[in-house]
Amino acid sequence: MAEGNFTVTPWEVKGKVDYDKLIVQFGTQKITPELKEEIRRAVGGELHVMLRRDIFFSHRDLDLVLKDWMTGKGFFLYTGRAPSLGMHVGHMIPFLFTSWLQRQFKVNVYIEITDDEKFMRNQDYTLEQTRQWAYDNILDIIAAGFDPDRTFIFQDTEYIRNMYPIAVKIAKKLTFSEVRATFGLDVSSNIGIIFYPALQIAPTMFEKRRCLIPAGIDQDPYWRLQRDIAESLGYYKAAQIHSKFMPPLTGPEGKMSSSIPESAIYLVDDPKTVERKVMKYAFSGGQPTIELQRKLGANLEIDVPYQWLYYFFEEDDSEIKRIEAEYGSGKMLTGEIKQILVERINKFLEVHRQRREEAKDLVKVFKYEGKLASQMWEKIHE
Amino acid sequence: MAEGNFTVTPWEVKGKVDYDKLIVQFGTQKITPELKEEIRRAVGGELHVMLRRDIFFSHRDLDLVLKDWMTGKGFFLYTGRAPSLGMHVGHMIPFLFTSWLQRQFKVNVYIEITDDEKFMRNQDYTLEQTRQWAYDNILDIIAAGFDPDRTFIFQDTEYIRNMYPIAVKIAKKLTFSEVRATFGLDVSSNIGIIFYPALQIAPTMFEKRRCLIPAGIDQDPYWRLQRDIAESLGYYKAAQIHSKFMPPLTGPEGKMSSSIPESAIYLVDDPKTVERKVMKYAFSGGQPTIELQRKLGANLEIDVPYQWLYYFFEEDDSEIKRIEAEYGSGKMLTGEIKQILVERINKFLEVHRQRREEAKDLVKVFKYEGKLASQMWEKIHE
Repeated sequence: MAEGNFTVTPWEVKGKVDYDKLIVQFGTQKITPELKEEIRRAVGGELHVMLRRDIFFSHRDLDLVLKDWMTGKGFFLYTGRAPSLGMHVGHMIPFLFTSWLQRQFKVNVYIEITDDEKFMRNQDYTLEQTRQWAYDNILDIIAAGFDPDRTFIFQDTEYIRNMYPIAVKIAKKLTFSEVRATFGLDVSSNIGIIFYPALQIAPTMFEKRRCLIPAGIDQDPYWRLQRDIAESLGYYKAAQIHSKFMPPLTGPEGKMSSSIPESAIYLVDDPKTVERKVMKYAFSGGQPTIELQRKLGANLEIDVPYQWLYYFFEEDDSEIKRIEAEYGSGKMLTGEIKQILVERINKFLEVHRQRREEAKDLVKVFKYEGKLASQMWEKIHE
Repeated sequence: MAEGNFTVTPWEVKGKVDYDKLIVQFGTQKITPELKEEIRRAVGGELHVMLRRDIFFSHRDLDLVLKDWMTGKGFFLYTGRAPSLGMHVGHMIPFLFTSWLQRQFKVNVYIEITDDEKFMRNQDYTLEQTRQWAYDNILDIIAAGFDPDRTFIFQDTEYIRNMYPIAVKIAKKLTFSEVRATFGLDVSSNIGIIFYPALQIAPTMFEKRRCLIPAGIDQDPYWRLQRDIAESLGYYKAAQIHSKFMPPLTGPEGKMSSSIPESAIYLVDDPKTVERKVMKYAFSGGQPTIELQRKLGANLEIDVPYQWLYYFFEEDDSEIKRIEAEYGSGKMLTGEIKQILVERINKFLEVHRQRREEAKDLVKVFKYEGKLASQMWEKIHE
């Protein structure tokens, strides 16, 4: 794909994304150093690594969210997931970041699990399957460290009971023409998936406060629909904070995909599998021979091991600087940076597995019995 | 409109309907004298006046329903209503007939109140309004005499919780193209009303038995969609028993319409209003002068007072024969038959008002607490 030629839609990310161009194309705002400083002051401590390194780089109305928080109006967080057979490390980005925001601002988080959408989008899946995956994914999500008193995780096929009234009000405002392009639908789409956008928008109206959605920037078009209709229903336009795409293991373009297993590290991958995948598939920006690498150093722009460390696995800024300097100059070899990545991924997964195990006792709390969850089951959203 | 030129769709009935032609057009079956005799034997008594007089005249799989009943498999009844500000007498036809079937066969009846559909179909209506109308219409429906132990009346915005899983399975089988023509949708339709057919079909799958739907024949196209997909989901094709259209007060063509108030008698109309409407608007097949009427008699084919008595208000077969003979021959005058109709309508409405009053204590029973209702709230339909 030619330089500068890329595609970002909710269902496809292709090419080397120019994020500055994307901000202009999508009409979002850049997260400026000034805005970051404002957040830093608000949280009274260090920023999350994904903010420090501009992994979360763009927003809509994040400034208004901060203002609401400072004036005591508050806000709430919303994210979600279409359940799948297994989650990969990239899927954890919005959840880890959302749980950090929750800890800093002490706000409610709503997490929608779209077992209905997943079922309706794929001819081959049964509802029983997507619900099994929902249970399984919820364990990984809980492992991101959410507050059980302030977090409500819900599946569409269960919580529809409480959401349907607000969903029909939303649905009445959206025509097939309006959702068609955004959601990649056509006249051969089934009538359930055509209705689904209403259920995706509904949680943005769970509170009469501003809703902040942390998500990949490819999801932005969905929320434009919400922003078109929210105020006419008496709610706020949803604010967003957008992340870049963690590149697939196999190359610096596009995004990780569950349908290409070697492009991703799964949360269930064991240490041996992680090592094998990184060593075999991780796309390198290093030079083809040790001699050339020593002389020229690696091209960090296209080197996936470096980018994975930068995006996700090496939170220590001085350490990432050291790796940048040594690998970029040729002091560090490709095999060495890959070993560092293997070690960091396995450390992350070990902690994750432990938390995931503990999460099994918490599913009921997050879904039904926790403080926020039990309040939510009492509420009908109108 | 020219002779033989008529239109019957779920949202429009125009012209003088040729019901024999319609059976051929729609591909339904005529209710033959033999089938009526079978029903008579099964119920062990007289047929309902609307069967005797072929108001219910067409069917799909009614023979199979009877067979299932006779072999002990049983069946269930399903009907419904999009709530409106006020019901007219024509709206009572399917409910009165369904409650008769229930009494004869001792079977479950499910009545869907589509407060969501009504809201989403009309820009001007609020959900609060359609729910208020739902409550109001439910009183009229209960007044038709349903068995509180065997009847479940439910509103979509409430019972969605239990119906949604089966609804998404249905929705996945229906594309926008497939429902578009049947439901009169286009790309400017809102996404809620596009999903709605799944909720209309869902109750046909409330039991693993054959479902019989008594309704105007204009509703038949909806159920063709159900018949296309039911078996692939492990359920029966819905059987139907179709009624003709009670003509509007104002003329023998089309059907009564709530949007033309003088065309209908409302269930809340007081005796004076009934008299005024019948005297002023009832379209007469009588001759323009007394002399001509005495000489030529009335044209019963186009006379609305006669047809209303025949369709609904005069159950006594010998009495209707007497009226036919006397009015058709000119012995009875237009003013006289109108007086008979006024008297019969007011008698019906007086009983209805009484039953409607009593229904206020029964709403909870039919919706939540009755034997069938409480069982239904325990069930998730998959």
